[in-house]
Amino acid sequence: MKSPNRIPQALLAIRCALLVVLYAALAAQAQTDPLPSWNNGAAKQAILNFVRTTTDQASPNYVAPEQRFATFDQDGTTWVEHPIYTQVVFTLDRVRELAPQHPEWKTTEPFKSVIAGDKAAIAKFTTKDFETIFVATQSGMTVEAFQAIAKDWLTTAKDPRWHRAYTDLIYQPMLEVMQLLRANGYRTYIVTGGGQDFVRTYSQQVYGIPPEQIIGSALELKYSYDAAGKGVLVRPPKVLLNDNFSGKPEDIYLFIGRHPEAAFGNSTGDQQMLEYTQAGSGATLEMIVLHDDAQREYAYGPAQGLPATEVGTFTQALYDEAKSRGWFVISMKNDWKRIFAWEK
Amino acid sequence: MKSPNRIPQALLAIRCALLVVLYAALAAQAQTDPLPSWNNGAAKQAILNFVRTTTDQASPNYVAPEQRFATFDQDGTTWVEHPIYTQVVFTLDRVRELAPQHPEWKTTEPFKSVIAGDKAAIAKFTTKDFETIFVATQSGMTVEAFQAIAKDWLTTAKDPRWHRAYTDLIYQPMLEVMQLLRANGYRTYIVTGGGQDFVRTYSQQVYGIPPEQIIGSALELKYSYDAAGKGVLVRPPKVLLNDNFSGKPEDIYLFIGRHPEAAFGNSTGDQQMLEYTQAGSGATLEMIVLHDDAQREYAYGPAQGLPATEVGTFTQALYDEAKSRGWFVISMKNDWKRIFAWEK
Repeated sequence: MKSPNRIPQALLAIRCALLVVLYAALAAQAQTDPLPSWNNGAAKQAILNFVRTTTDQASPNYVAPEQRFATFDQDGTTWVEHPIYTQVVFTLDRVRELAPQHPEWKTTEPFKSVIAGDKAAIAKFTTKDFETIFVATQSGMTVEAFQAIAKDWLTTAKDPRWHRAYTDLIYQPMLEVMQLLRANGYRTYIVTGGGQDFVRTYSQQVYGIPPEQIIGSALELKYSYDAAGKGVLVRPPKVLLNDNFSGKPEDIYLFIGRHPEAAFGNSTGDQQMLEYTQAGSGATLEMIVLHDDAQREYAYGPAQGLPATEVGTFTQALYDEAKSRGWFVISMKNDWKRIFAWEK
Repeated sequence: MKSPNRIPQALLAIRCALLVVLYAALAAQAQTDPLPSWNNGAAKQAILNFVRTTTDQASPNYVAPEQRFATFDQDGTTWVEHPIYTQVVFTLDRVRELAPQHPEWKTTEPFKSVIAGDKAAIAKFTTKDFETIFVATQSGMTVEAFQAIAKDWLTTAKDPRWHRAYTDLIYQPMLEVMQLLRANGYRTYIVTGGGQDFVRTYSQQVYGIPPEQIIGSALELKYSYDAAGKGVLVRPPKVLLNDNFSGKPEDIYLFIGRHPEAAFGNSTGDQQMLEYTQAGSGATLEMIVLHDDAQREYAYGPAQGLPATEVGTFTQALYDEAKSRGWFVISMKNDWKRIFAWEK
């Protein structure tokens, strides 16, 4: 007599097949490449080695979870900075938008050149000129009002080459590094010469990094009261933090109180952050992005025989320091299989 | 025949008894009071209600885990500040220790009075006088050297009343609030007028709060190189952040980029932090500690009919603001069953 519980042979075979498929899928998952947009090479291997050696409890380089910090420069390191920083484009747009309320700008530099659309003059602006424009156009409102203005601009503005939102110009390989580090207990920070509050408007959505992990250049804040007597923070026209060059390690210490274990940059403005990271104890990782892919992104900097610009300078001296200190140079052309998430 | 697997009756009874004990223990654990050093009352209830209403997904006041921030003033809120701030004691000791290297201090105020041990003169020091001493004695070294000096002092110094290490003078009820909040997904921050780096030397051990969650008054930092060419951070004699009064909400925004959900203070120096917390959306919690227990700790401030001091002022105006805004006043005498962990 056939037992009512007896499983037909066919069904058993299907079950077995399903189990095989399931195990294969699990095995595949376990072996999934955490950095699929990276070509195999020294840079990719360095990242994987760093994660392995600092998270394996049996390793002499083991780092306790509460000490796992990784810092990323933004412009030129996690998104496109060429030919001009995104926040500078935003700022120039702000000058044109606010010009009707500031008739004096028509005759006052550096505003005059911006309003006239004098690209040659703008190309010659000094850091001081940019600071003047930044401060004039991004101060005098509450922090919430500023964030609304920045968000609004980011929703509508398109870059001139790919005609995409600027937040689409994030480097997919760097997102993968951030995700791999976070999956291994690292806290990822942006440490940018750009405005802290500008980056905070999109950092969670774009990088998966919350506002409290954004370190950047910052205006002083002034606590005051609105018409209803509610406490608000207003942005006065005065710089508190200039998060470039030595400002980077200084602000990292101010915010987190220790050396990062890993740092990623692309210019002389990141050099001190990388040095400071390496000055910590144990195994550390320092990497700089070399823009050597004119076809898929840009090629610039003296390492490519191009003139150095004030913006995003990767000088020969930085290249030499990297070599002598054992920092890894990431070649966009050779190390990155894919640069943007939307690439085919 | 007795089965070899049969369990004797006696053993079964023991097993049952063990199970009963186990269940009882689990039930007791589930009902354990998370705030055992608090007497039942409005303050304790307010804390428990706040945690419940902001962490229950069905509640209209639910706060997403990534937005759960709670900020604590330190002096007078989480540890004893009377009759003089701990970091001031440290600073006066530093003046005496460094005096041989600064012969000019013997004839220069405010150093002269400190070296002479002129208590009456010290009692009249202004905030500016203290700042002068702070800056002179706590700058000019690397951040690591400063932390070593502070740690060393904290290991040996004893308070004059209880003859205990200053880090023993933490309020146990506040530690319980921090632990309860953290167990419910809140990140706890110290937001102190005291020195950020001073507090960082003991915050993990004493409060369970890591260095990156300490906001405080801070000197500027200067990145430079040691004799071996290694990048180091030195403390120049210049104040960057004064984390008192409106400095508190300003620095909270600088560090975390949003309103806290809960804030704890004890003086007019915390007023703006509490206002700013309440100005956020949703259910918030604001509490101020009233020092009204001369027997177990101290009683001071105009609410007790005592003269206001520059240090730790709980004024009548603050008391009135608390009442009108719905902030909770914690009476040390009535709300705290136990003040220190080492109390019998």
